[in-house]
Amino acid sequence: VTVRPGFVTRLATAHPGDTSAFAGAGVAPSEVVAVVGKTEGNGCVNDFTRMLAASAWGGTVGPQAVTVMSGGTEGVLSPHVSLVVAGDDGAAAGPGRCLVVGSTATVPIAPVDLGRSAQTDAVAAAVTALLAGIPPDDVHLVLVKCPLLTSDQIEQHRDAVITTETYESMAASRAASAAGVVAALGEPGPWSAVASASAGYELDCCSIVALAMAEGGHARQRIAHTVMADALDAGPVIDLLAQVRGAGGRVVQVFAKAEADPSGSVRGRRHTMLTDSDVHSTRHARAAVGGLLAGLTGEPAIYVSGGAENQGPPGGGGVTVVWEAP
Amino acid sequence: VTVRPGFVTRLATAHPGDTSAFAGAGVAPSEVVAVVGKTEGNGCVNDFTRMLAASAWGGTVGPQAVTVMSGGTEGVLSPHVSLVVAGDDGAAAGPGRCLVVGSTATVPIAPVDLGRSAQTDAVAAAVTALLAGIPPDDVHLVLVKCPLLTSDQIEQHRDAVITTETYESMAASRAASAAGVVAALGEPGPWSAVASASAGYELDCCSIVALAMAEGGHARQRIAHTVMADALDAGPVIDLLAQVRGAGGRVVQVFAKAEADPSGSVRGRRHTMLTDSDVHSTRHARAAVGGLLAGLTGEPAIYVSGGAENQGPPGGGGVTVVWEAP
Amino acid sequence: VTVRPGFVTRLATAHPGDTSAFAGAGVAPSEVVAVVGKTEGNGCVNDFTRMLAASAWGGTVGPQAVTVMSGGTEGVLSPHVSLVVAGDDGAAAGPGRCLVVGSTATVPIAPVDLGRSAQTDAVAAAVTALLAGIPPDDVHLVLVKCPLLTSDQIEQHRDAVITTETYESMAASRAASAAGVVAALGEPGPWSAVASASAGYELDCCSIVALAMAEGGHARQRIAHTVMADALDAGPVIDLLAQVRGAGGRVVQVFAKAEADPSGSVRGRRHTMLTDSDVHSTRHARAAVGGLLAGLTGEPAIYVSGGAENQGPPGGGGVTVVWEAP
Amino acid sequence: VTVRPGFVTRLATAHPGDTSAFAGAGVAPSEVVAVVGKTEGNGCVNDFTRMLAASAWGGTVGPQAVTVMSGGTEGVLSPHVSLVVAGDDGAAAGPGRCLVVGSTATVPIAPVDLGRSAQTDAVAAAVTALLAGIPPDDVHLVLVKCPLLTSDQIEQHRDAVITTETYESMAASRAASAAGVVAALGEPGPWSAVASASAGYELDCCSIVALAMAEGGHARQRIAHTVMADALDAGPVIDLLAQVRGAGGRVVQVFAKAEADPSGSVRGRRHTMLTDSDVHSTRHARAAVGGLLAGLTGEPAIYVSGGAENQGPPGGGGVTVVWEAP
Repeated sequence: VTVRPGFVTRLATAHPGDTSAFAGAGVAPSEVVAVVGKTEGNGCVNDFTRMLAASAWGGTVGPQAVTVMSGGTEGVLSPHVSLVVAGDDGAAAGPGRCLVVGSTATVPIAPVDLGRSAQTDAVAAAVTALLAGIPPDDVHLVLVKCPLLTSDQIEQHRDAVITTETYESMAASRAASAAGVVAALGEPGPWSAVASASAGYELDCCSIVALAMAEGGHARQRIAHTVMADALDAGPVIDLLAQVRGAGGRVVQVFAKAEADPSGSVRGRRHTMLTDSDVHSTRHARAAVGGLLAGLTGEPAIYVSGGAENQGPPGGGGVTVVWEAP
Repeated sequence: VTVRPGFVTRLATAHPGDTSAFAGAGVAPSEVVAVVGKTEGNGCVNDFTRMLAASAWGGTVGPQAVTVMSGGTEGVLSPHVSLVVAGDDGAAAGPGRCLVVGSTATVPIAPVDLGRSAQTDAVAAAVTALLAGIPPDDVHLVLVKCPLLTSDQIEQHRDAVITTETYESMAASRAASAAGVVAALGEPGPWSAVASASAGYELDCCSIVALAMAEGGHARQRIAHTVMADALDAGPVIDLLAQVRGAGGRVVQVFAKAEADPSGSVRGRRHTMLTDSDVHSTRHARAAVGGLLAGLTGEPAIYVSGGAENQGPPGGGGVTVVWEAP
Repeated sequence: VTVRPGFVTRLATAHPGDTSAFAGAGVAPSEVVAVVGKTEGNGCVNDFTRMLAASAWGGTVGPQAVTVMSGGTEGVLSPHVSLVVAGDDGAAAGPGRCLVVGSTATVPIAPVDLGRSAQTDAVAAAVTALLAGIPPDDVHLVLVKCPLLTSDQIEQHRDAVITTETYESMAASRAASAAGVVAALGEPGPWSAVASASAGYELDCCSIVALAMAEGGHARQRIAHTVMADALDAGPVIDLLAQVRGAGGRVVQVFAKAEADPSGSVRGRRHTMLTDSDVHSTRHARAAVGGLLAGLTGEPAIYVSGGAENQGPPGGGGVTVVWEAP
Repeated sequence: VTVRPGFVTRLATAHPGDTSAFAGAGVAPSEVVAVVGKTEGNGCVNDFTRMLAASAWGGTVGPQAVTVMSGGTEGVLSPHVSLVVAGDDGAAAGPGRCLVVGSTATVPIAPVDLGRSAQTDAVAAAVTALLAGIPPDDVHLVLVKCPLLTSDQIEQHRDAVITTETYESMAASRAASAAGVVAALGEPGPWSAVASASAGYELDCCSIVALAMAEGGHARQRIAHTVMADALDAGPVIDLLAQVRGAGGRVVQVFAKAEADPSGSVRGRRHTMLTDSDVHSTRHARAAVGGLLAGLTGEPAIYVSGGAENQGPPGGGGVTVVWEAP
């Protein structure tokens, strides 16, 4: 499996199990390589909206597609899915550089391997295979949906697992997955500018979706990315959006990572995301960065994922824009 | 009591009871007319960080000052207080139009009057007296700290109170307070562009702080406001900040209101703030709008208050900027 | 449809979508009249674990069964389902008074009818039909799963719905459902000692399950109920359990209702369930009463449902015990 | 400082800063050795109700008293304080074995020492000094209020602190404190049957309160303890209460520890306290065990503290009863 020319299209959902919009999307199920969704759970350990959505969409589009469901639509963020489709978007564009897409999955990650080099290696190998022939600079987004440790698994392997806290296992899994992307793309590290990892209860392997630019397709869509240095770093996003508009483009979808600055402050000001025992920091970060990106783009149905270990600089994160050329 | 030339200065706080920064602020306690703070509680009924901060700052600056403590520093927002000071900011500005400030309080609002016309009338009368001689168009911010109904009060007056839900009583109190500002300033209504009301357990009257422009002072600070039509409405804020920068000014502080759009959607996209039974909608709204405003200004220690009943259009809210002329 | 001799059996679940234990239960899908479950969501508006469980179990046992999924396994409560089965439990008991079971459903409840007499009447009619020929004193549990108002429905019918708050709509729906049980059984009112209503997003009609005692069956199981006057009222439960043990019986399952005392205090002591803006009162009540009942019975996989409007006296609730005779 | 004959008396509080009941308690401030309270915050890192209460009560009773404020009154638990008083309770009892009380504090615990042997040693030394001359078997409760790590401290000492998570630091601090009690009393370990530790933001040393039985006083109050093996273990509590009643006694106050079973299950049934990312496990555990103990005693204004590391067996906890002889 490798990447092919394709496109992204967004569908609204009325609840996590809602796939009713697919019927009107004009997309053949067999062409869907991934369903990348935001669901309205807490995005943490006991967020079963991801499982509900993954089950509903898996049944709708078929087993050739991976599902990457990211919980948490805090603030203005709006629940939706992005279909990643390998195929013609119906627009008559001449052959040239355009968006290419693809998906794959690793073997199951054993609980004792979660968050460790075995997971990193598995992700790296899968990403390398999927993106064969694509220069790393042309890769703008690698989504990874990865497992977490359940209470049961922790109890069974208490002395061998990387952490005995389920919530912490999500961070460890994201970090190891992103490290796999760093290795596959030869990024300088320790963090990746294009990896976006999300952990969940609903799978035991790592599902991977890659979006890149490549020659030779007829697709109208393009992709580019930038990096926010911290959660207030609007400048690079404003610049990227200006480039798209300058090219006469229309923004199709935005994919971003967000996290609470691990230092406990942003630009010298104390934040309280890491000391709030009522609301997890990933929820805070999605709400804040989601509010900023939705304001800058005018669109709340965007993909903002929390917990950015090895995904962008500490406290910051990558921002990828898929857009349609005129 | 009426408004006088003055200034605003911001102090960071290490926790809700922390007043240690006051000693280095170079402000005489007697000149402080108000301490307007953001504390790190949930901003809802059982947020006692407001009480802790009000008690600590009341003891520090003395009884001539009112305290307006607004709970909730979700996302990137940073706990702080803004001292509102009547007096000279030390800058040698010639006499001219400048920031004027003042504070006052109503009589106690009886539980059965909360959220009703008696509260509105009390606020209107107090605002009118405080701003005597100031044209309504020169008024850019009227902060109101107002009471809520406690479980005890609801139990004692169950058949006479406006609501039997403590959380709902906060909204009713904010709405009645803002209506008082509308009446005092002769705004077209039903909502005020400059009112910012916050309800809390820690007082039984309404505390009021007004900031306006007026002739004749030597102060260097200025004030202006705009209105966000919804939580994504970055445009008016970008414009206002450009005006300040165009005048060579430096932003001193931002005061904003935010709320979850009561329609359940923003720009046609469903949001989940009103159906999240784990995190109240006011928390979501502060996080999202706080994320946007902090990104646009580069400053997270700003005042973003949730629950905007009658304070800006539905789903939107007023944004006031205090700035210092060159 | 009427009630028939049957039995209750409990199955543990590893997550809300887990039906794997059914295969080993030795129960024919066609004999199942209801699946009554506790799932691990928040039990409030955005608890999609109920939808996930209802979908999974509906697919497993077939359309003749109703699913009553109640969210919230706070504290020691353990996620599980109780299969309510019409049929022989395999025990060789002579004919006599024993447990009889049945289920039915009302027509869909229109959003404008939710919480109103139309809902009450629909539930009353369905309960009356289901329990035809059973004296009211022999009825020990009537479970009702009823709809709530979604944000969409509220927006579409804003002036006609009983409340514009989704969370409040759950209470209104439970209250109207329980009033239907009161009417059907001729209870003195306003509350029912045997109704147990739970609202959810996942259905638009009211599903009803009834358990009673009747003559003539060969089943080994029996049923009885009592009422807790408040959340501390262990006495009646201790007495009922002693009766079961005195008869040589073994407790099969417990079904209970719990709520925060609406007065704001229990036995003259202030509680904080109604003023906690981080955790809804229904969650608190389930945790506390669940902790007491689990301690008294030694079993945490019991059905404790929150929000007891018209279901037991204010602050209290009914407790039903299904048990197996020796 | 050592322990002296004394008594415990309970006062209700209307909010965390409320000390108004003290005026009517008939207790001289100088006789108070400790104020042990339950406040209505989340009991976790950002629970500032403890700070508010500690400040208010410290100002009321004076510096000779330590304040032990434990956050979290989930479920039916009711906010209150227990005054621990060294002195005559006004009852005419002959000299004999009775309750003795005392309090002390360690030196400040440096952030890098928190959760480590230095903290354990400091607590052990202080407890040993305070209880000089009392046989370990006569000690029935040692309350320890201990510090936690703040974000600031973690940032300053990132490579040297025991954990970089504020919430985790509370557990580490409680564990080290309890280990100090084990050492001082020569308990077999690893856990103490009488230690009750609570971590908080509001202090930097460990405050210690000890209650024991000793010869020679005229006080009417007595003290005894038992241990719950798990959160459902009602039996030992029922037995202890029966002993008190059998002696004609009246329960004055109950002090208990509670925690989510770290195995993820209770009596073979999966619980969800450790996987709930919306509500911390300590809140769940207090609600459940509080519900059970309040039901068994008929009193919700009892001291149930969450997080029982080294305080009772895993998943269980000690229960101490102070009672008044006839």
